[in-house]
Amino acid sequence: MIDESFGKTLKKLRVRKGISQEEFSFNIGLHRTYISQLERGLKSPSLRTIEKICKEMGFTISQFMEEVERYNDN
Amino acid sequence: MIDESFGKTLKKLRVRKGISQEEFSFNIGLHRTYISQLERGLKSPSLRTIEKICKEMGFTISQFMEEVERYNDN
Repeated sequence: MIDESFGKTLKKLRVRKGISQEEFSFNIGLHRTYISQLERGLKSPSLRTIEKICKEMGFTISQFMEEVERYNDN
Repeated sequence: MIDESFGKTLKKLRVRKGISQEEFSFNIGLHRTYISQLERGLKSPSLRTIEKICKEMGFTISQFMEEVERYNDN
């Protein structure tokens, strides 16, 4: 549930930034397949991965998690 | 770094609540050894684990992460 909300938020913000999964995964040094799994809520990211993702997105972790929680409530 | 700040925040809030590692780990269904490793910053918790911990602490994830970030900045 939380993983799914995280994934949907990640995808939404990545698409809004206009970057591909390939580009995004290259920038943060993770495999594209893993990013794809995260976006589909199939994996639960570690805090260290969450930190990398948020930095790349230009969010603090708490700001990003607010977005995730907003998604989770809907 | 972020794992260490997470661990120190977890420990601080757990102690403030006056509950032992044993009690806390029992309540959230994780092993005490794992909680001890988290508190020492030796493991990076998954988002699902973070969610369990925050619920037990009575925080939203974003609120908890604000505490972690405050610790991380100091």
